[in-house]
Amino acid sequence: MQGNMMDVQLTVPTILERIRTQYAGREVVSLLVAGRDEQGNPVPHKHRTTYGQVADRARRLAGGLLGLGLTKGDRVATLAVNSFRHLEAYLGVPSAGLVLHTVNIRLHPEQIAWILNHAEDRVLLIENVFAAMIPAIKAACPHLEHILVLGPTPQPIPLPGVRDYDTFVQESEPLTRYPELDERDAAAMCYTSGTTGNPKGVVYTHRSTVLHSLASAPKDGLNVGEADTVLPIVPMFHVNAWGLPYTCAMYGAKQVYAGVFADGRSVATLLQDEAVTITAGVPTIWMGLLAELDRAAQAGQPYGLGGLERLIVGGSAAPEAMIRAFQTRHGLSLLQAWGMTETHPLGTASGVPYGVDPSSDEGFALRAKQGRTVPLIELDVLDDQGARLPHDGKTMGRLIIRGPWVASSYFKGEGQSNFFDLDGQLWFDTGDIATLDERGYMHIQDRAKDLIKSGGEWISSVDLENAIMAHPAVNLCAVIAMDDPKWDERPLAVVTPKPGQSVTHDELISFIAPRFAKWWLPDATVLTDSIPIGATGKILKRELRDQYRSYSSTQGLVTPAAPDRSE
Amino acid sequence: MQGNMMDVQLTVPTILERIRTQYAGREVVSLLVAGRDEQGNPVPHKHRTTYGQVADRARRLAGGLLGLGLTKGDRVATLAVNSFRHLEAYLGVPSAGLVLHTVNIRLHPEQIAWILNHAEDRVLLIENVFAAMIPAIKAACPHLEHILVLGPTPQPIPLPGVRDYDTFVQESEPLTRYPELDERDAAAMCYTSGTTGNPKGVVYTHRSTVLHSLASAPKDGLNVGEADTVLPIVPMFHVNAWGLPYTCAMYGAKQVYAGVFADGRSVATLLQDEAVTITAGVPTIWMGLLAELDRAAQAGQPYGLGGLERLIVGGSAAPEAMIRAFQTRHGLSLLQAWGMTETHPLGTASGVPYGVDPSSDEGFALRAKQGRTVPLIELDVLDDQGARLPHDGKTMGRLIIRGPWVASSYFKGEGQSNFFDLDGQLWFDTGDIATLDERGYMHIQDRAKDLIKSGGEWISSVDLENAIMAHPAVNLCAVIAMDDPKWDERPLAVVTPKPGQSVTHDELISFIAPRFAKWWLPDATVLTDSIPIGATGKILKRELRDQYRSYSSTQGLVTPAAPDRSE
Repeated sequence: MQGNMMDVQLTVPTILERIRTQYAGREVVSLLVAGRDEQGNPVPHKHRTTYGQVADRARRLAGGLLGLGLTKGDRVATLAVNSFRHLEAYLGVPSAGLVLHTVNIRLHPEQIAWILNHAEDRVLLIENVFAAMIPAIKAACPHLEHILVLGPTPQPIPLPGVRDYDTFVQESEPLTRYPELDERDAAAMCYTSGTTGNPKGVVYTHRSTVLHSLASAPKDGLNVGEADTVLPIVPMFHVNAWGLPYTCAMYGAKQVYAGVFADGRSVATLLQDEAVTITAGVPTIWMGLLAELDRAAQAGQPYGLGGLERLIVGGSAAPEAMIRAFQTRHGLSLLQAWGMTETHPLGTASGVPYGVDPSSDEGFALRAKQGRTVPLIELDVLDDQGARLPHDGKTMGRLIIRGPWVASSYFKGEGQSNFFDLDGQLWFDTGDIATLDERGYMHIQDRAKDLIKSGGEWISSVDLENAIMAHPAVNLCAVIAMDDPKWDERPLAVVTPKPGQSVTHDELISFIAPRFAKWWLPDATVLTDSIPIGATGKILKRELRDQYRSYSSTQGLVTPAAPDRSE
Repeated sequence: MQGNMMDVQLTVPTILERIRTQYAGREVVSLLVAGRDEQGNPVPHKHRTTYGQVADRARRLAGGLLGLGLTKGDRVATLAVNSFRHLEAYLGVPSAGLVLHTVNIRLHPEQIAWILNHAEDRVLLIENVFAAMIPAIKAACPHLEHILVLGPTPQPIPLPGVRDYDTFVQESEPLTRYPELDERDAAAMCYTSGTTGNPKGVVYTHRSTVLHSLASAPKDGLNVGEADTVLPIVPMFHVNAWGLPYTCAMYGAKQVYAGVFADGRSVATLLQDEAVTITAGVPTIWMGLLAELDRAAQAGQPYGLGGLERLIVGGSAAPEAMIRAFQTRHGLSLLQAWGMTETHPLGTASGVPYGVDPSSDEGFALRAKQGRTVPLIELDVLDDQGARLPHDGKTMGRLIIRGPWVASSYFKGEGQSNFFDLDGQLWFDTGDIATLDERGYMHIQDRAKDLIKSGGEWISSVDLENAIMAHPAVNLCAVIAMDDPKWDERPLAVVTPKPGQSVTHDELISFIAPRFAKWWLPDATVLTDSIPIGATGKILKRELRDQYRSYSSTQGLVTPAAPDRSE
C-alpha cells in the first residue's frame, strides 16, 4: 500500500525561496580584495549584503543564464573564492535547472582546463584575481561560450564572450517561475582531488543537496539556526564548502566569507568582529588560528571569541593534541567531521556520546576519531576478501559507505570498481582503512594505499602521525612505509620541527612509545624543512614515498635537502 | 542530466537501526499503571529500559507480526497510551513493511470500531487498561484477526486470537533483514478528529516520516540531540505524537512517557525527576502545569526545572498570556508549533526572528502566532475566489499548504475537495483562516467554519478568545457566532471563570477593548460551569453554536445550565 503524501520534490529553489521570503534581512558578509599593499599582499575590504539581495541577484543570474540559451543540465563552472557572489551562483545556477561545477582554484591551469573540458562547461564564473588566466582557458576549452568575471576589473574586458558578472546580473530579468525539477536531477558537481589518476567528477542531485542540509543541521552535527553566524573557511570549491552555504541558507544563519584571507590573524579578527558562532575548515587553518590565539594571549591581548561555539574540522584528521590545545588553552570546542567528495561530504561527526565528559581523556580520545554517522548514512568495514569485519574498535578493515548523498558512480561512468554490490545493496569503497566500535565510532587508520604492512600486519600511519605531532617540538609529521628486506615495509617518520627547535629520533620514540605496540614504532626519523602539501591541503605521501622508499633505518637520523613542492 | 547519487530509500528501519547500533545505552522511561488507590485513581510505576532493548523487542514484534501471516501494507492498529511498548510498535510495525494505525483512545467505542473497520486493521495492540472493550471490539470488527494486550493483565485472556504482547514479543524471532521498501510505501496512518462528518484516514509514508524527523530536529524547531531528554505529553495516537518518537530516536535523545499521568503534579514531578530538557503538549496540559508550578512556588517549594529548555505547544493556539506567564513567573520558554493530522504535523514553529528579544512585547506577540515554516513547507492565503492574497500580516484568507509531508488525498480517496490544483501544483486546504506577514509569520484567525461574519466583514474568534483568556478571572473562553437580524452574525463570549471568581461582561469588554476595533467586541457574555471539549482536546464549538445560536444580546449576562459533555 502506498501512502498518500504529496510528491513534492526536494530541490534547491526551495532553499532560495526560504531566504527570500523568511530571512531576507539576514546578512552575508564577505572579505573582498580592495587592492595590494607595498609588499604585494592583498588588502581586505569588507562587503555587506543581505539574503534578500542575494536571493534577488541569484534569481537574476538564473534568468540571465537561461537567457544565454543554456538548457537543463548544462554545466556552469566557477573558479572563485568564498564570497556572496559565489553564494549567488550556489543558489541561482541549480535553481535554473543548470549544474554548478565548482573548480579548485589551486590546481595547475592545465588541470583546470582538463576538468573544464571533461565537464563540458558552457559558462565559467571566474574571480577577478584569476582574470589573467582567461585567454589560456579560452584557448584550451572549446565548450566554453561565456565567461563572467566576478568583482571589479581594472579595465573593460576586450575578449569576446567575456563580461562583467555584476553588470550581467543587474541587466538580467529575475527568474520567478523555476523550471520543473526532479529531485534526482543534477544540481552541482565537484571533481575528486585525483592524487592517483585523473580527477573524477561527482554529480550531486537536488535531493542529495537538500537531504544533506537537513541531516547536517541538527545539534550533534553543525547545530545551525537563524541566530547563528557561520564562517566557512573551507573553500566553496571543495565539496560545496561541506554543504554549509546551503545549510545556512535553509535555516537562516548569517554567512561570513573570508575570501583569500585565511591566515590566522585574518580569521581570528573576522571571528571576533562578526561574532561568529560556528566556523569550519581543515586542520591547517586551525593550526594557523591556534598559533595566532596563543600569540595574542601571550601578548596579553586575547581575542574576544566568547560566542564561538563550534569549530568544525574536516578534510583530514585533526590530531588530538590540537583538539586539546584549543579546549584547554582557549576554551574552544573543535568538532571533527569526516566525509569525502563522493559523500557530499558529511558522513560522520565526532561528538561524544551522552554521559562522557568532552574534556576528559576518554572524551578527547573519542573526539579525535572521525565519529558516528549522521542519520541515513551507513558504514561498514570489510576484509580483503570482502567479508564484513567485527565492530570492536580494534579490527581494521576497508571502510565502505552508503547513503542518499553518497555517489553511485562517477561522471561518465569512470572508476566503476569503487562501487560494488554487497548483499543486494550498492556501496562505495572509500579507499580508507578504519575501525568501527560497538557504539558506532569510526576511526580512520589510513588511506589503504598509505597503510604500512609490516610482517603481514597493518600499521596505521595516521595514528603514529597524530601521536608524534603532539610533541612540543614538532610542527608537521608524515609517517610512510620504507622498504625492508625482513618485514617488507617498516614505518619511517618524516618530521618538520617548529621554528628554532629540534628533536631526535630517540626523543620522539620515547615520547610515543607508551601508546603503541613496540613493532608499530618507526625505525627512523627524517627531519626536513618542508613536507609537500597538495591542492586540497593534504600531505602528498606519494611524493614522500618516492623519495624515501629505499631509505634505511641504518642511515640513522639525517636531514636531507627539502623535497620540491610540486604545486 | 541526472546526478549520480545512490538511490537509498528514506525508511523507518534506518531509524530503528540507529538506536540499535549507536544509541543502545540511552534510556526510555515510562510511567505505567501499577494499580489503583482507594479512590480508584491509578498509581504510577516507573519503568526503565534502553533503546537497545526497545530495538530488540521492536525487531521481535516485526518478526512476530510477519509470522502471523501479515503481508506488506497490512494495517496494525494501536489503542494505547504513551509508553515504551507503543514506541516498539512505532519502530517495529513499519520496519516489517506493515502500517502502524494509531487509534484515539478517547473516542466512543462505536467510533473506534468504525475506524478499525474502515482501516481494515488485521491486528490490534490494546493497552491493558482498555481490555474490557475487547469483546465488543472483536464482535464489531470482522477484519481483526489478532489482539495483543499491552502490559500485565489480572488473569489469562480466554478469548481466541487474544494474547499477551510481552509473551508474543519474547517468543518471536527478531526480524534481521528488513523487507525491501519504497520510501513512498505506507508507514503509519491516523484519522482526523472528524468534528464534521466521518473521520478520514491520512496515510503517512516512510519518506514523509523520515523527512519530518530531519526537518523538525534542528535548533529553531524541536532542537533535539543525543544529550536531550524528551517528554512527549502529546498522545502517541495523535499525529504520531508530533513525530517526536521518531525524531528522538533518530538523534538518540532519551524518551520519557507519562502514560495516563498528564495532570500538572505528575508532569511537573516527571519533568524534574528525569531532568527533562524538551517537552511537548497541548495548551490544556500547560495550563495544568502552570497552575501546579504557581502553587508550588507560592508554597515556597518550587520544582527544579533548570534544565528544561523548551515546552512545545501545539494542537490549538497558545494564548499570549500563557506564554508570558511561563516566561515571567517561571523562566520557562514555550515554543508554539502548528500542524494538522494532514501535515504529519509540523508546518510552522514560532521562534522569534534574529534581532527580536523573545521576552519583549514584540517577541511575545510573535510567539503567540503560529510562526514560520519549517524547511520544505510552503504556505499561502487565498480569497473566496481562490486568488492569492497579500502577505501583509493583515489580510485574512483561507490557509493552504504544500510540502513532502502534507497529504495529497485521504485514505480511500475521500474528501477530494480539500486537495486542489493551483498554478500546476497540488495544495491542501487547511480549512483555517489566517494571515501571513512579510517575514513569513502565519497567524491563524479561525477555523473557516468558526469565523464570525458580521456585516460582511470577518471577525476572528481566536483573537478574541486569547484576549479574554488573559483576564485573571477567566479560566476558559470560546467566542462563537450568534444570529443577528441586522449584521447576520455577532460575537458571543462563552466563559468559564476560575474557581471562586466571577466577572461581568462590561469588565471583560473594557479589558480587551484597547486591542480591537469596536465592531469586533462581543455583544454579550455567557458564564458557564463548563465548555465542551472533544476527544483531541479542542473546544466543540459546533455544540456551543447549536446551543447559543439564537441567544440574543438583549438577554444580558446570564448563567445557563452547563451543557452536556458529549464524550
